[in-house]
Amino acid sequence: MDCIFCKIIKKESPSMIIYEDKDIIAFQNIRPLAPVHILVVPKEHIPSVDQLEEKHKDLVGKIFLTAKKVAADQGIAGAYKIVFNVGEGGGQIVFHLHLHLLGGWKSKEDIDMPGMP
Amino acid sequence: MDCIFCKIIKKESPSMIIYEDKDIIAFQNIRPLAPVHILVVPKEHIPSVDQLEEKHKDLVGKIFLTAKKVAADQGIAGAYKIVFNVGEGGGQIVFHLHLHLLGGWKSKEDIDMPGMP
Repeated sequence: MDCIFCKIIKKESPSMIIYEDKDIIAFQNIRPLAPVHILVVPKEHIPSVDQLEEKHKDLVGKIFLTAKKVAADQGIAGAYKIVFNVGEGGGQIVFHLHLHLLGGWKSKEDIDMPGMP
Repeated sequence: MDCIFCKIIKKESPSMIIYEDKDIIAFQNIRPLAPVHILVVPKEHIPSVDQLEEKHKDLVGKIFLTAKKVAADQGIAGAYKIVFNVGEGGGQIVFHLHLHLLGGWKSKEDIDMPGMP
């Protein structure tokens, strides 16, 4: 497997780890697009949302509870965005499922994402 | 409850419904920010990601499997973004948990979201 996130999970590639348990790892995005930009990643190699199956429902829930916890730990509860890019046409670059946790802006006006909902 | 999404779920407010089952409803966003912009919403009134608890894990998984199915039905599999705004400081407007499903761009260059991951 030549997956950069699998290498990070196996500690074969360096990363700034924020949180880790048996199912999930969260680490700093190396090219942050917001003051806080953390990736929350399941250890299981699932390429994208399009490959999620019934058996992954609990894991997806766990990814969200981890994002909520990490956001609180980072002091951005109530003020963050969660983004999943799905497939090349959706802007996905690494084909290992990951949640982008974005926040830390000084104000709502400071969010520089014009086309965002 | 004066929640617009609860009213849509109870059919007290109109909406363009795309999908519905006992737990989830998906409908068109009335102010689309992409050629496809659908909201996938749990029927249970949970204000935001910050209020998710252990008991909601399966429901969160179901929201994602529904988004995947709706994306496929819309012909945008492999080419979409999923966004959750959390709290006022994260750009959330309606305080009933919802997933933004965004896609339908002609090309990657057509995605007009400069600050997005």
